[in-house]
This record gives sequence, C-alpha cells and structure tokens, in this order.
Amino acid sequence: MTHASRFEVSTRGNAHVVDISGQVNQVVADSGIREGILVVFAVGSTAGITATEAEPGLLNHDLKALFERIAPEDMYYKHEETWHDDNGHAHVRASALGPSLAVPLVDGRLTLGTWQQIVLIDFDTRPRRRDIVVQVVGE
Amino acid sequence: MTHASRFEVSTRGNAHVVDISGQVNQVVADSGIREGILVVFAVGSTAGITATEAEPGLLNHDLKALFERIAPEDMYYKHEETWHDDNGHAHVRASALGPSLAVPLVDGRLTLGTWQQIVLIDFDTRPRRRDIVVQVVGE
Amino acid sequence: MTHASRFEVSTRGNAHVVDISGQVNQVVADSGIREGILVVFAVGSTAGITATEAEPGLLNHDLKALFERIAPEDMYYKHEETWHDDNGHAHVRASALGPSLAVPLVDGRLTLGTWQQIVLIDFDTRPRRRDIVVQVVGE
Repeated sequence: MTHASRFEVSTRGNAHVVDISGQVNQVVADSGIREGILVVFAVGSTAGITATEAEPGLLNHDLKALFERIAPEDMYYKHEETWHDDNGHAHVRASALGPSLAVPLVDGRLTLGTWQQIVLIDFDTRPRRRDIVVQVVGE
Repeated sequence: MTHASRFEVSTRGNAHVVDISGQVNQVVADSGIREGILVVFAVGSTAGITATEAEPGLLNHDLKALFERIAPEDMYYKHEETWHDDNGHAHVRASALGPSLAVPLVDGRLTLGTWQQIVLIDFDTRPRRRDIVVQVVGE
Repeated sequence: MTHASRFEVSTRGNAHVVDISGQVNQVVADSGIREGILVVFAVGSTAGITATEAEPGLLNHDLKALFERIAPEDMYYKHEETWHDDNGHAHVRASALGPSLAVPLVDGRLTLGTWQQIVLIDFDTRPRRRDIVVQVVGE
C-alpha cells in the first residue's frame, strides 16, 4: 500500500525552522498504514527537512547560527552572478541539509523520540509558501 | 512485506562513532526480504546515522573533528539557557547530520561498498543507551 | 512491487558535482511503478548524493567551496596515517553529506521542484567511475 499527501507551509524564510510534525502525523493517521516507511520531502532547492527538539532556543537561534557558520549569507556565491539574486547561501545550505527525511512507521506510529520533531528549514531570503510531500509505503 | 526491528547500542557520547552494520545486516537476514528499501533510524535528538569507512582514524578522530569545527562544544547555544544543560552542540550536530539513513536492498543484500559501513554517532555529553529502529519494506 | 537498477557515472573527483536526474528518471520510467518511494544510493565512502539546482555557479564553485570550508583538503586527517593516502577530507565530507537520498514518487513522477535536480558529489582526489544504485518500492 502507498499513501501520498501534499500540504503547504508558510515561512518567513531566512532559516525559519517550522515544526511540521503535526501535519506529518495527520498523514500517517489518514493513510491507514501501520507498518512501513515514511518520506517527508521539501519541494524546491532552498529548503530542507531534518529532525530536532522543537525547543525555541534551537529553533530560533542555534540552528540558524549553525548554517550561518557553514554558509555565511555575506560571502561570495557564484550562483548570484548567474541570476543576479541574493540567495546563493540558501541553495548551499539546502544541499548540505538535504530535502528529505525517511522515518520508520511501526505499529501505526512514527518512531520519533519524545523530544524529536520533524522540521522544515526555509533558507530562502524572503517569506515563502512551501510544498511538502509525504509518501508512506507499507501495509 | 515489511519487517521492523529495534536494538540498543551503548555509547560513550561525545561524538562516539559506533559501527552498527552487523546488527543492521542481521535485521536484513531475519526479514526474509530480498528486494526493497531499508531505513535505519536513531531515536532521540542528539544522535545521528550515516555511512563511513569503519577505520579507526575516521571513527575516533576525523569525524569528531568535523563536528567540532561546525558546531564547537564551547560556544554559546541558546538551548542551554532553556534547560540549563550543556548539550546545545549535540542537538545542532544531530540535526545537521540527520537521524536516518535509507539504503537499497538488492538480491538479499544492502548495496553498501566494501569499505562503507553504517554508523551511529552519539553527540550527547554523557554515555547513553540508544534505541535504533530498522524498518525494511519490499518483497 | 520493487524495481532496482544500477548505473555508472564517470567523475573528475575533487568535489565534482554531476547531475544524475536523467538516469534516475529513466529508472522510474522503466520501473512501471507510479506511487512509492525511490532511494538513490552512492556505493563507496568518498561520495554522496543530494539535491540542488543544476546551475553552473552552484555545481562548479559554491558547493565545492562549502565542503572546503567544513573539511579543508589541506588539514590533518588521522585517516591518512592509516592508509598513507590523501583523501581523509573526502571521507569526512561524504559522511557529512550522506550516501543516499529518498524521494517520493507520486503519479508516476518524482516530486522534485522545477529547479531541483539529483546530484552525485564525488569527493575523492582522483577521477572515478561510481556505481549508483536506485531502488523503487511502491505500486
């Protein structure tokens, strides 16, 4: 069996981290699938998906600081010459993080820890509406 | 068909890298599934899963040094104000690495290279017992 | 249903980024599977898979610069003492990026964005022929 769903998330951009666990868990419930694998995927090349504790210090400061260290906003990116834009760092950060996360589904629940949530990080330099695709495969 | 299994791994924390390929391969053998996808998942928000050559220099020094560069232990993390603890860097490193790894299963075997093993990296600041979940979907 | 395929990619090494979306889409077409999950996997411990816009500035400069920042080539790696070689940075970069990418397959198509391609990054220090495995599970 498979079950796919797509939903939108509004972000402020600039490494805004959004907890999407609620929406993803709703897809699991709707699917009727109890054992399998779930993939959460961010459509577009300036956002990524990972897991973290949904604690304000991490969400609003520490994760943003990490990506500013590895791909600073105010640095030369050749990408910006191509399109005459300002989001080279957003592309690089998104590629480093990756657009998807795979999670086991066991006994009708994702196997996340108590303090482990699924988040979208939007690295683009402006507010965006993001398409998130969730696909569940199992039985 | 699906087959899930959960096992525990004892770690020393502090970016301890543990080769868990043996346990994962045992799950593949137990599953009876010969063609499909396997997901290895670390429960909890201060550990991650990746692949590497299980060579002591990489396991005990080089990977640890990488994470110390991108998220130094002795740096300000707002997370530590929330809980009055000391593992902000552990959360940030785990989110950067990601908690899961998806591997193809073909002809009854994972498609890993000869020098490519599956590892758990525990970033927390103390010894831990970690729950690892493996889910296989296929036929 | 499952469908696996393996293909080779020639690279120049040294963080050469190669767009493999065409080959991956061909596997999807050959599979006949219309709903499910696809995993792209790089065999070997000095290469990784991610997604990016296949724009020359990103492919040829910005992504390479990212990995040079987080794991510089000219730095001490204990791995190089073990094998008396020169690719410690390649191993570390590959483990940070990860060897695989999972993508939903919906209505016969991968859910990639218009400007979002699947790429192999080869971090080794010499030209290589790389084995890429694609596994599709679904219906």
